[in-house]
Parts: sequence; structure tokens; C-alpha cells
Amino acid sequence: MFRPTAAASALLALAVSTWVAGQAPAPAGALAAAIDAGQDRYARIAKQIWEFAELGYQENRSSALLQRTLADAGFTVRQGVAGMPTAFVASYGTGKPVVAIIGEFDALPGLSQAAGEAARQPVTAGAPGHACGHNLLGTASAAAAIAVRDWLAASGRSGTVRYYGAPAEEGGGGKVYMVREGLFSDVDAAIGWHPSDANSADSASTLATIAATFRFSGTASHAAVAPDRGRSALDGLEAFDYMLNLLREHVPQETRIHYVIKKGGVASNIVPDVAEGEYQARHPDMRVLQGIWDRILKAADGAALGTGTTVEHHVTMSYWNVLPNDTLAAVQHRNLVTVGGVHYSPDEQAFAERIRATLIGPAAALGSQAAIQPMKVGTVGAASTDLGDVSWVVPTVEVDAATFVPGVAPHTWQAVACAGSSIGIKGMLVAAKAMALTAGDLLANPDTLTAAKEEFVRRRGARYAYTTLAPERPPLEYRK
Amino acid sequence: MFRPTAAASALLALAVSTWVAGQAPAPAGALAAAIDAGQDRYARIAKQIWEFAELGYQENRSSALLQRTLADAGFTVRQGVAGMPTAFVASYGTGKPVVAIIGEFDALPGLSQAAGEAARQPVTAGAPGHACGHNLLGTASAAAAIAVRDWLAASGRSGTVRYYGAPAEEGGGGKVYMVREGLFSDVDAAIGWHPSDANSADSASTLATIAATFRFSGTASHAAVAPDRGRSALDGLEAFDYMLNLLREHVPQETRIHYVIKKGGVASNIVPDVAEGEYQARHPDMRVLQGIWDRILKAADGAALGTGTTVEHHVTMSYWNVLPNDTLAAVQHRNLVTVGGVHYSPDEQAFAERIRATLIGPAAALGSQAAIQPMKVGTVGAASTDLGDVSWVVPTVEVDAATFVPGVAPHTWQAVACAGSSIGIKGMLVAAKAMALTAGDLLANPDTLTAAKEEFVRRRGARYAYTTLAPERPPLEYRK
Amino acid sequence: MFRPTAAASALLALAVSTWVAGQAPAPAGALAAAIDAGQDRYARIAKQIWEFAELGYQENRSSALLQRTLADAGFTVRQGVAGMPTAFVASYGTGKPVVAIIGEFDALPGLSQAAGEAARQPVTAGAPGHACGHNLLGTASAAAAIAVRDWLAASGRSGTVRYYGAPAEEGGGGKVYMVREGLFSDVDAAIGWHPSDANSADSASTLATIAATFRFSGTASHAAVAPDRGRSALDGLEAFDYMLNLLREHVPQETRIHYVIKKGGVASNIVPDVAEGEYQARHPDMRVLQGIWDRILKAADGAALGTGTTVEHHVTMSYWNVLPNDTLAAVQHRNLVTVGGVHYSPDEQAFAERIRATLIGPAAALGSQAAIQPMKVGTVGAASTDLGDVSWVVPTVEVDAATFVPGVAPHTWQAVACAGSSIGIKGMLVAAKAMALTAGDLLANPDTLTAAKEEFVRRRGARYAYTTLAPERPPLEYRK
Amino acid sequence: MFRPTAAASALLALAVSTWVAGQAPAPAGALAAAIDAGQDRYARIAKQIWEFAELGYQENRSSALLQRTLADAGFTVRQGVAGMPTAFVASYGTGKPVVAIIGEFDALPGLSQAAGEAARQPVTAGAPGHACGHNLLGTASAAAAIAVRDWLAASGRSGTVRYYGAPAEEGGGGKVYMVREGLFSDVDAAIGWHPSDANSADSASTLATIAATFRFSGTASHAAVAPDRGRSALDGLEAFDYMLNLLREHVPQETRIHYVIKKGGVASNIVPDVAEGEYQARHPDMRVLQGIWDRILKAADGAALGTGTTVEHHVTMSYWNVLPNDTLAAVQHRNLVTVGGVHYSPDEQAFAERIRATLIGPAAALGSQAAIQPMKVGTVGAASTDLGDVSWVVPTVEVDAATFVPGVAPHTWQAVACAGSSIGIKGMLVAAKAMALTAGDLLANPDTLTAAKEEFVRRRGARYAYTTLAPERPPLEYRK
Repeated sequence: MFRPTAAASALLALAVSTWVAGQAPAPAGALAAAIDAGQDRYARIAKQIWEFAELGYQENRSSALLQRTLADAGFTVRQGVAGMPTAFVASYGTGKPVVAIIGEFDALPGLSQAAGEAARQPVTAGAPGHACGHNLLGTASAAAAIAVRDWLAASGRSGTVRYYGAPAEEGGGGKVYMVREGLFSDVDAAIGWHPSDANSADSASTLATIAATFRFSGTASHAAVAPDRGRSALDGLEAFDYMLNLLREHVPQETRIHYVIKKGGVASNIVPDVAEGEYQARHPDMRVLQGIWDRILKAADGAALGTGTTVEHHVTMSYWNVLPNDTLAAVQHRNLVTVGGVHYSPDEQAFAERIRATLIGPAAALGSQAAIQPMKVGTVGAASTDLGDVSWVVPTVEVDAATFVPGVAPHTWQAVACAGSSIGIKGMLVAAKAMALTAGDLLANPDTLTAAKEEFVRRRGARYAYTTLAPERPPLEYRK
Repeated sequence: MFRPTAAASALLALAVSTWVAGQAPAPAGALAAAIDAGQDRYARIAKQIWEFAELGYQENRSSALLQRTLADAGFTVRQGVAGMPTAFVASYGTGKPVVAIIGEFDALPGLSQAAGEAARQPVTAGAPGHACGHNLLGTASAAAAIAVRDWLAASGRSGTVRYYGAPAEEGGGGKVYMVREGLFSDVDAAIGWHPSDANSADSASTLATIAATFRFSGTASHAAVAPDRGRSALDGLEAFDYMLNLLREHVPQETRIHYVIKKGGVASNIVPDVAEGEYQARHPDMRVLQGIWDRILKAADGAALGTGTTVEHHVTMSYWNVLPNDTLAAVQHRNLVTVGGVHYSPDEQAFAERIRATLIGPAAALGSQAAIQPMKVGTVGAASTDLGDVSWVVPTVEVDAATFVPGVAPHTWQAVACAGSSIGIKGMLVAAKAMALTAGDLLANPDTLTAAKEEFVRRRGARYAYTTLAPERPPLEYRK
Repeated sequence: MFRPTAAASALLALAVSTWVAGQAPAPAGALAAAIDAGQDRYARIAKQIWEFAELGYQENRSSALLQRTLADAGFTVRQGVAGMPTAFVASYGTGKPVVAIIGEFDALPGLSQAAGEAARQPVTAGAPGHACGHNLLGTASAAAAIAVRDWLAASGRSGTVRYYGAPAEEGGGGKVYMVREGLFSDVDAAIGWHPSDANSADSASTLATIAATFRFSGTASHAAVAPDRGRSALDGLEAFDYMLNLLREHVPQETRIHYVIKKGGVASNIVPDVAEGEYQARHPDMRVLQGIWDRILKAADGAALGTGTTVEHHVTMSYWNVLPNDTLAAVQHRNLVTVGGVHYSPDEQAFAERIRATLIGPAAALGSQAAIQPMKVGTVGAASTDLGDVSWVVPTVEVDAATFVPGVAPHTWQAVACAGSSIGIKGMLVAAKAMALTAGDLLANPDTLTAAKEEFVRRRGARYAYTTLAPERPPLEYRK
Repeated sequence: MFRPTAAASALLALAVSTWVAGQAPAPAGALAAAIDAGQDRYARIAKQIWEFAELGYQENRSSALLQRTLADAGFTVRQGVAGMPTAFVASYGTGKPVVAIIGEFDALPGLSQAAGEAARQPVTAGAPGHACGHNLLGTASAAAAIAVRDWLAASGRSGTVRYYGAPAEEGGGGKVYMVREGLFSDVDAAIGWHPSDANSADSASTLATIAATFRFSGTASHAAVAPDRGRSALDGLEAFDYMLNLLREHVPQETRIHYVIKKGGVASNIVPDVAEGEYQARHPDMRVLQGIWDRILKAADGAALGTGTTVEHHVTMSYWNVLPNDTLAAVQHRNLVTVGGVHYSPDEQAFAERIRATLIGPAAALGSQAAIQPMKVGTVGAASTDLGDVSWVVPTVEVDAATFVPGVAPHTWQAVACAGSSIGIKGMLVAAKAMALTAGDLLANPDTLTAAKEEFVRRRGARYAYTTLAPERPPLEYRK
């Protein structure tokens, strides 16, 4: 993977920033004002999706609500794209450039939690909850897209703004199938965001990841009477695990390999004829990861061969690492600074303090939600996202906004509590404005898009062709 | 364990048989006739319990029906003994000798099957079924006890016959708790039987077994972001498994160790903080097995120590190997020969042929259900039973009767089909008569009991004291 | 493998014994007297070979001494047979029947010990010693062969007696190559013996065994700088071991699998590019063992595949289980009874008592060396011998004589001390006489040979064809 | 560990460099000239030590030659310090400051190679060779110390220059024992260097490392007859390995754990009673490493507990990571630039080209030996050195000089060929001059030492106390 040295990056970032500053800016004030004008409506939508709390590929009501909102605002909506009933593309405008804004709206299982409550209190025990704030995510992106549409309409400029309604980010990989379907083929830049406990816009990457179910099959037999006539599928799986653990020494140290066992036999007196686990590997570079994945498959084959069992695997997820783009990140960071952070009311401050009392370990200071973090270049986060796949077919930028109280991690009940409260809404509006400003800049300044595109081609290589190990069809049933 | 050579055993068996034959026999004809007279009633009871198909410790209706039957016949019933609501002891008569007949009545999960059907066809999909024929088991023992009672009553002899209603043989170990409670302390001999595909009475043993749940606990952590802050409970469990597999080389070859993994983590991106498996060990001698079990516990402790996790285990089952008794086996075998085997009607023959068409692999010839197998001495079966615990506190004998079509194994749907059909009833009556005759012999001939007791003391050792690793309280919830 | 039940065997043995007794016996007195007459000379030869203490395939002086002894007695000697410089066949007589007597003469590494000393005291520290008593073995067989030759010469009977000088029994497998070369193709019966701490002649078997060196190859790399560029051969080998340990559960319980690691890397900071171990498997039936061996090979292949290494293996040893022969064993046992056991002088008794003071654990009583053990039928010893291969191409019998003080195990310094003392010589003479008498019986009674041959064919099957996994050439360097 | 961000470091380095430049420089010209004047003599010494090629703790002649050289130049020599016969400290001057120059002189086993030969050609097959260039190392340091002494003597300044003759750097850890003995307690700065294929002076660290021999003990038994009576030491060791491989997931990713098996049993038919391996762990921070090491010990204990064996371990090596010092590195880098790189004659160029033809993989360009690499700050090399221990008790700096043809790695025969040739001598002189200039600067400018000391205290913490897991006595026999 192309990775500039830190020093080179700093210079580059400076240059880009200066250069961008020299161009005609988009009408930031108008765009932000349009979002402020709709803020009650957007708050209601976000709250509704928070209440729907629909799991991946089951986001029927959430998707419909967002589609309706965009259609009402003048967008043309194609629904059920790429074989996914809840995926859609909403488009406005004509011709080039084409700027995409990405929306997500799926919830997470088991994390139901009352909004604005600073203690664990499910709305419905065991039910899903928006612990990654995707209720805010999809809504902010819609707000940004509508603001841009209004500006395009008012100015009469050519150019297209699109909203990509991408389902099942949490493991289902909706964007992967949208990419494979070619839905981004004419897009010039993509803008995404993510709920967070801080405001930032970096030229950063993520870990590429591949996950699969491995299923070993053997021969059942009575474990006391005739163990010699059995072939233990669990032996196969444990031998696989053993060789994976040996493999750890012989892969680049940034690699991650992790697994759980989901089926390990039925009763101790029967030699298990089926054993199954979920396996996942990650690395900062998908092209390196694919080589590691090949070795993982060999470990599985070797385990089956060596234990007299058979093995088959089914890839459930394959996300590319995000290909960062310094050019776009510099624009996005400048706009985020323009928008500014999140300011709490006294009640919000009190809630934030109560939430923080439930956290363990060190965390960013309370108050940091009001600041914008310095732009980082060249870092690699440990998370993985299907936005990675988008970033290898179109120059992509992502911004984070402080929808969560500082210190609150995603995928916690605290995140659900924030995502359903006024704090979450405030962060959502920061993100909406920051994205709208960037989309405006890109539509207004073709040179920025050209520079972004040049950097994009240089980073991924000229002869790059997108491939993925993802399954042939979207795993629509993966949360059922 | 005392184990006579085959040749010595043959001589012994001959001698015992001859000697027994010299004693005053019980009125075999009267006992058998009493059972024949009640055969319709017993068939109805067996069929009802077959329909109840209640799992271990949940045999409320089955137990109540048998209690009522015995009470109606003049027995005094103590119910809910040894802390088990479905356990009971029914007693008739006064003074010595005291002969126990053992009854079981629990079904097996998931094996519901239509009676008399030669194809897989559940009555209720997923529901329990009498795949070990315990509906016949409990009923035949009641029939035998009642016949003996009638004879005692008619003859005016002193002596006591008892029926032990022992729940949850299939893993719950009802008899273990009855033994520990001291319910057998004044018993002179115990007689049991088991449904089978052949008629036999051997001086044979079983494998002692101990089973437990092992639960490893670690520290959860995000497997990509901070695997170094996690401690994988699954690592602990797999290291335990690894050392168990190493242990196999260094235990006596008759040992069995087997396990399944029941919990191996929730999602691949979280370091598992809990992992759990069911582990079982067996050996022909409980006293050797307890030493092996100590080493298994050390392997678990070593795995926890070496992986930074903790482990706890809960014994779920502990069954002694059956202590055989040549004296009693010789009596029981002679009586089984007297009773004779099972004879099929043309319809039954046709059904048997259809059932056999569904079997895989070699099997005893059809027709063998009419014969009595030669008595075997000194063999060790691979099964385990809680009758083993009874056999170490009182001289015990067990008989098998052909309730299943030859070739049908227990714990199959075919066994359920037979256990609910007339074939099962016929085998049940063979068992009932064989046990009644033996109980009669023992009550009539104190010398036989004395010889059996001397052999019993010689085999187990004079200073033997019963101990068990079984849990403090019966696992009443184990099937819930 | 054909295995008669114990009861059937006892009857068979009785019948054979009776029938044999009805035939014309060989001149037992003359044969025994011939051996007694040469006893000083045989004692000197045995002592010389004890002093040579030459390892497998290096028995140049020992082999030459025995060849000279036999040649001087009128045998025709073919030396260097089957590609082994120290192997030879010495033959006397013409025509049928042909009776083979087997001799061995290799020592064991590191077990040098002063003769007749009851404390550990090497003659030369680290040097080889005759801890399996093969100095006595080769000499007794020569004495027997010469006695038989003298009788044949005196009587003018037709018939041939052969001495097979078989090198490297201790792992080198000289007899395997002699068998493969067809050197036994015209032999009617083979007679062997082994030094022991008791006198016995059984119809018993041994464990078949296959042993091999497995060598894994990987890619070396600096273990700190670039472990990801290395492929650890030791990973391959340990994964192989892991799967072998899993395999233990799923082979018949009489199987043995054992291994040691001989090369496991050079320095901890280098990823090992070579790892090597010695692996051995055993089972009572070579034909079952070959199936298990195939699975062991698959485990090795699976380990290599799964760890990115390669593996090759070289079989170093392949010994068939001994195919017992009740007919021959009955003859041999009768002759052993005729010859009688070993009687100690007061000095020998004192030495024996001192030796026994160095032993640990239970042992046969002192004095038992004077008795002959009852004949056992159908047992399987845990040892392995290349006499097994002979036994599948010609009916074979083996006798043991008490050359060691009761309780002394082979392969100990105590065995070396006995093998070089007068006690060893006395046991040697028992063996020589017992074999001579049996050879005489077989040459005199063709019917016995016919019966032995019929049993032999029945046991091994009519379509049997000898095969072996042994290496193409004898491993002449295996002790260098 | 304190680790400045790259950007902060660049600024710091710039500031330090500027500030250092403002101080009174040492007489660089005079120091360099003194070394040039002695270059033939130093070349002879280096060549002699190259020929001695003595292993760690056996460097008797090498150490004596360097001691004599320093004594002849006016140094006072203490030999046999810290319990190591070949360690010494040579001192000149009085009072503060005290500047230490570090010398090493041990060779590596098995790497004998003809000097100036571009093909593998041992001088003596299997003999040691100077594959790490320590013949140059010890000599250059002596040349630098003598030049500084001459300047001190000529100028009459107060101050002390010391030469630390440190044996057995290659695993024996001579400096560890010198540090523990307190031999550096009054030293203000330490200067070391290392032969390399480039010229550089960085503020860089190394990996801390701990290595140990782990020995498992079990119970031997015949692996076929009584495997259940054995306890395999190899089981213990392989279970340890297994848990180490599991541990890899749960330590920081920069950690290294590597091992080889040195004893894994004697013969496959004996359950191994002893198994032994060499284990090594590394991490950029010794204080983190010690925590990891504790977990490794627990894995060993757990393996022993779980397999019924016992384990003991003996630490053979414990080296701290180098504590870098930006202040000293800036001074050293400036002086290295002043001295300049290595320039080849046509013959040397031709040799270099031939050597490069024997190399595999990418390498720095030929010609780069003439340049000085830019100073790096904050990097961590994968190597480990006992200079690390020195660096935690006194501010320390290290310089590399191009004694090897670009692309030649240490510990190769190519390195031996270079270390014995004129190319090696040229690099040695670069190092000698660079160190002399730095020692001069430090003696002349107390403020630099003060700044270095302040940085040193800040980095290691104020309450730091040196500890080491190294054995109580130097492992004087480790190469025997």
C-alpha cells in the first residue's frame, strides 16, 4: 500500500490546504443555513429510525422513511438496488461532476437501551439498538444531500448529488454489493461520515478484513464404544485453530486473526460429526490480506487432511481497507473547522457527566466535543468498514462528529443512549453541515476533484481492478 | 477390579448353577402366571408411559402412574425420596430378606417416533421419545414386584419386596442419590433389567464414568483493536483439550476421554470471555478413574494458569462401573432360560422385517429374539449406568430382554417404534417373569443370598466405603 | 488376524500335544548330550561376543566367529547375504525337510557393564553392551544347529538344518531383508529363542511396528527481524505431533504411537528451517497397522500443508507381528519341559540376590528360573521383533530361557551383567537343547511339519503375499 | 517508553543540533590526525584479532592485545573485572567528566571465512569467524580512546577517558555484568559503535530481550509396554509451546517470542523423561517485556501442571532495549558528517562488486558507503544488544560505520570476508574518528553532557533502579 512518510504527508497536507484555499469556495453559509432550517425535521427522522432499530437487511421502515424524505425533496429514487431490498440510490441534478453522500441505517442486536438514560435500561430486553448511531448517520447524510440539492437547484449549476442508501454495514456489507454492481462507476467523489465521541477529518485508513464460516465434517460414533470408528469434526477444527495460532508468528505483525467456535459437538458421548467456527482476518492492505487468507485456507485444508475430516468455508464478509485521500481530507477538515463542534446545554452537560461515571478507563476530556481535532495523515484505525470498498473505486473522504459523550465507545449501551438524545442530534447536524460544505466545494471546484482523482490513481495503481471475496449474493439472512 | 479368567469363570458358573439347583426353588409357575394374568393392564401402563415420554426428573405422570399401580396392589409408597420429586420406594412385606427390584421411566429428548412405524415419523417433531425403552422398564419391574408380593401374601412368608422408582437414569443419575441417601442400606439383593435386542443374563460389568461441565473465564476485548488486553477463555479451553489429548497416551488403554465444546465465543471480533465444554471420562474401574479424573482436573488448572484465565467445573454425572456377581447371574440366567424368549406373530414378523431394512451394518439374525444367549462372565460393556452405584452397596444382577427387533440399537427412533409396539410388550413380559422368578428364588433360599453377599464383599473389598463425585443435590434442572 | 478364543485354543493345544506324542520322537538324549559336550567351547564363544559387543550391522567379529564355528563343524557358509556384510546362512544336509534355527549377535549402545557385577560399573563408559543377551542368542542357536547336524550325519537321514545369522535385530531388521531376499523360501519351519528371566514356550504374538524419520523443511529467517518471511519447520513438526495426539482417540485402543524430536532448530533467534523426529506406531496386526500408518502419513501431509512447510519420511523399521503357531509351540513346550530349567550354584545364588537388591518393583520369585512356565496361547506381548517377518513366510516358534536373574528386564545393565556370567551360560544351554530337540522332532516327523503348515496357512490366509514398508536397502549406517 | 512523535522529534533534533553548534568544539582535526597517524598499527591489531577469532568469554588473546595496546599508550588497565577473565577497564586522566568508549572483540561460531574472498571459503572449516566485525569494533574504540588520551595529555585538561573491554556481546552479555558491578557508576556518557554496511548515527532503540533454557522433566517408561506409567517431558514442552503460540494473540504486536527444541527425547520407544528448549522473547520496552516474561513463566508452569511433569528454567541472556539520547545522537551525527564516509580503491570496488553478486534480494546501492545517512529519531531496530543495559545507567550514543559492502548483513560469511579486508579497516577508521570527535566534544562542553543527562533522566524516569533477570554469574561456559 502506498503510505507517505509522516514528514512528506505533513508537507503535502499543507500544500493541498493552501491550494484548496485558493479556489472558489462553495456557499458555506447557505448550505449550513438550509440544514439548520430543517433541524427539527431531521431530529424527528433520526429519532424514528432510532426507535425502528432494524437489523441489517431488515431496515425496511428506516429505508422507506429516508427514501420518502429524499423523494419529497425532489430526488429520484431507485430502490432495491444490487439485489438488496433495503438499498437505494437517490439522485438529483444532471451531468458532471457527480458527488455521492453515503447513508447507513442498520442497528445492532441485543443493545436496546432507553435514550438519554445514564444507566443500563433496555427499552425491550434483547432487542436491537442503534449502538453505532446509524440512525444519525443516514439522516445527516440525507440532510446534507438535500442542502446540496437546494443549492444546485437555486444556482442552476450543472452537477449531480446522490444519496447512497447502504444497508447492513454491520457485517452484511451492503456497499460491497453496490460497488460490485457498478453503482459508483460515474461518481467523482464520495463523502461519508461516522458518529464518534470527537470531531475529526483525517486522511486515515482502516483494516481490510475477510471473515468466513468454516465447517468441518467427520463421522459420528459412540465415543465410548467405538471411538476408533469416528472421525471428530472438532479435531479438525481444533487442529485448524492450532495451525492458525502457529501462523501468527509468520505473518506481518499488523495482521489480526480471530475466531470463535459456534458448534463444537452435541453430547460428550458422541464423536462430533460437525464443528463450525467463525474466523476473521485483518491487515492494513487487502492485497496482503488476500495472501494471508490463502494461507488460512491451507491451514484448514491441512487440518482436514490430517484428521480425516472434510472442510468447507463460506466467506461472510470482505471489506477493503479505506484508501485515504489527502486532498479530500484537507478540504473536509477545513470545512469541519468552519462548522465547529458540539456545545452542550446544562442538561446535556449533566447527562454527559452521569454517562461518564459509567465508563471504565481513561477517556478524552469532557468538553473536547466542542473542539475539532487536528488532521491526522497516514494513520490506520483498527476498525473495518465497507466504505473501504467504495474508496477503491472512487476518491472517498470520511468525517467524524461528536454524537457520543467523550469517552463513549461505539457498540455500547451508552452509545445507544446518546444516539437517541439531543446530544446525538447536535453531532448529527455538525456532520451534515461538514459534508454539505465539502460536497459544495467539490461541485464548485473541478480542480479539487482532478487533484483528488490523481492522488487516488497514484495510490491504488493504474492497473487496479476491483475484486472481492464477498459471496455472490448479499447475505440477506445473516441477522435472522 | 477382580476379574476371573474365562476358564475359571466357566467352572465357577457351572458350580454355582449346580449348587443353586440344589436349593428349594421358588414357585416359578405361580409367579409367571400372575404376570400373564395382568399382561393387558401392564401393556396399557407401558403404553401410557410411552405416550407421556417425560424427560429425566420431569417424569411426574409416569412416576405417579407407577406409584398408583403399586399402591393399588398393596405396596406402601414413599414418594419424593432423596430430594427428587419423581423418585419413590414402594415396599411390601416385613423383615428379612429384602429384595429390591429397580424401575426406570425417563425418556430421551428429540426422539419422538410413531409406534409400530418402520419409517422415521415423529409423533411430535422434536419431542422426547422412549428410545431406551424405559416405559417398559418401569412397568416390567412393577409387574415383577406385584407378582412377588402376591406370592409372599399367599404364602405368608416373611420377607420384603421393594420397588425402587429411580428417575433420570439417562444422565441425571437418580440411583446415585438414592444410594447416597442410604435407601439401600437394608437390602440384600437388587434386581434390574434393560430393554435390548436379545435375551441375556451375564456376570458383566460396565464402564465407570464421570462427566462435568468445565467453564473457562477470561477477559473480553476487541479482537482487532486491543487483543493484547484480552485473555481468551477459548484459549484456556483449547489448551485444556490439547493436554487431554496428550494425556491419552499416558492412561490405561481402556480409558475413554471425550468432550464437546458448547460455548466457544460470541462473535469473532470479540476475545471470548467465556468458553464451556462437556467432558467425560470412563474406565472399567471407578477407583482407577478417580485417579485419572484428578489428572484431568490438573490439565484444566494448568490450562487456566498457562493462558491467564480461570476455570471452574461442575460434575454432572458420576456412575460406578457395575460390580458383577456370578452367583446372582447364574440364578438369573437359569430363570431366564426357564421363561424363554420372544415369539413374533406374523404381523410382528413383518414389522420386524421392515424395521431391519432401515438398519445399517451387521446385526444379529432375525429370530434370535426367541433364544436365550449363553451366560458371559467377566466381560465389560462400553455403556455406563447408575445401576453401577447400586451394585457397590448391594449384590446386584441385571437381565436383558428382547424388546427391540434384533439389530435395533438403543437411542434410535427404531427403538422408540419397538418400545411402543406389541414386540416391546412381549419382551417386557419376559423380563418381568425372569425377575420375578429370581426374586422368588432369593426370598426362598437364604443361602443363595449369603453366597452372593460373600462374593460381593470379596470383590469390592472388606473396607470399601461408597463415595461419589456426584453433585451435592440431584441436577433436577438438567433437562430444562 | 485369526485369534482363537482361549477355550478353543486350550482344546487345540491339548489335541496337538497328544497327537505329537504319538509320533516317533527325535533322539533327545543324544542331542542334549552333544550340547553338554561342547559347553565349554560355547561358553567361550558367548563370552567373546559379549566382549566384542558390536552394534547392529557392525558385528564383524561376532559374525565371523560364529561363521568359523559353523564352518568348522561342517556347515557350508554363505556370507554377506541380502546386501548385509554381517548376515550369513550356514547350511548342512540335503533335501527336505529344511529346518531353520535363527541366530542374532548385535549389542546395544551405551550399556557397557562388567560381567557378574551387581552394581552399575561400565567396562568402558558409553560403550555398547549385550543388554539383550544376543551373545548368548547367536551361540545357543549355533550349538543347537551343530547338535542337529551331528545327529543328521550320524543317522544318514535326509533333511537340512540351517543357521540364519541375522544381524541388527535391535532396530536394523536384518531378518526383514533376508525374508525379502527369499532366503526362507524353501524352509519348512523356523526356530528361534530369546534370553529372558524365565523359561517358557508360548503360542504368542508380538506387536507389529513401523518406525520412520519424519523431516519437515521450512524457510529460515531472523526470528525478530522478519518472522513473517520464515516458515518454521518446527511448526510443521509440532502440528504433526498435535494431530497424532488427536489421532489416539480414533484408533483401536491396542495401538501405540510414540515419537521423539531429534532436531528442533539451531538457535532461538532463527526460524528453524529443518525439524526432525522419530515416529513409531504399533498394533497387534500389521494389516491394521498399515491402515493406521496411512493416516499418520496424512497427518504429516496435513501438517506440512497447513504450516507452509514440506515433509518427507524415511521408514527405518517395519516388523510384522509374530504369527503364532500352536502346533509348533506345543512341540517346543514339551521339549522345554524335557530339558528343564536353570539351577544356580551357591555363588550364582548369592550374585542373584545381590542383583535383585538393585531392582525396583514387583518381580517373579527367585527360584522361578528352575521352573518351566505353563504354555500360554493367544497372548500378545508388547515387544516387537523382526522374527515377526519370518513367521509370516514360514511356520515359526520361539522359546525363552532364563539367562537373566528373575526380575531382570532386557535392555538394562543388570541384563548385561547376567549375559556375561555363568548364569547366562546356563540359560543359553537350556535354550540350545530345547531348540535342538524341536529341530530333531521336526526333521523326524514330517506330519508335524504338515500340521504346522496347515495351521500357518489357515492363520495368515491363503492369498497372503509378504510385503513390507522397510527401506529398499538395509540401513547399514543406522548405528553410526 | 518515552517516544516522541516523528514531527516533534524532527524539531527537537534541529534545536539540539543548533544548540550544540553554539558550543566550543573539540579539536576535531587533531583527533582525526592522531588516528590517521596510527592507522597501520590499528589495521594490524584488527587483523590479528580477526585471525584469533575467539568466541565469547574465550577472547584471551584478543583481550590481552587490546589491553597491551592501551597500556602502552598510557592507560591504567584493570583486568578480569566483574568476574569475567577477559573483561577489562582501561583508564586515563583524572576527574570529571568521565567519558566511556566501549569495545567488543568476540567472534561467532562456525563462520570462518577467508578475508577478501568473494566466495564461501572457510579458513578452517567449522571454526569461528568475525561475522559481526568485532575485531574492528574493539580496535576502533581503542584508537578513539588513545586519540582522546593524547589530546587530554597535550592540552592538560582535566577529564577522564575510559575504554571498556566488554566480552561476549554475542549472547554472553559481558556489559550486563559490568553494569551490575557498578563499573559505570561515575561515567557521564558512553560511546559505542557497530560495524555496518552504511554510515549512520541515530537516536534509535533496539528490542529488549530475555532468553532462557526451559527444561521439563517427566518419568521414562517403555512407550509400548507401559505408556500409562510414563509422564512425557516432551508433552510438557509441547504444551508449553502450544500456550506460547496462543499467547501471541494477547501480547502487544511488537512482541517477539521464538524458540527451538534442543532435547526432545532419546528413542521413540521410550517416553522422554527430559525435554529442553531455548526460548526468547523481545519487546521495545524491557519493562513491558518483564510482564510478558512473567506470563511465559506461567505458561511453562501451566504446561507442567497439566501434563504431570516439572519444569525449571535458567535465564541465559537479558538485554535492555537501548535508551536513545537525542542530544548525544545529534552531536555524534554532526561529527560523523565531519568525518565522512568510505571511499573504495578500484580493487576494493571490484571486490565489492563480486561480493554483491553473492547477495540475494534488494540492497542499498553500491556507492552508499561513501555517504552519511540522515539522522533518524524514534526508530526501533529489531536487533538486541547488551549496550542496552549500559544506556539505562549512563547516557549512551552509538554510531555505525560502513565496514561491510552495502547489502552485506552481519552474521554472514560475507561480513567475515569484509571484516578481514581493507574495506573493513576503512570503515573502522571512520568509526574511530567519529567517536573520538564526540568524546572530545563531550569532554570540552560540559553543557552538552548536562543536556544529555537531563534528557536521560526524563526518558528513564527519576526513580529508575537498574534490575536484570541475567544469571547471578556470567555464563563463562556458554560457548563451550
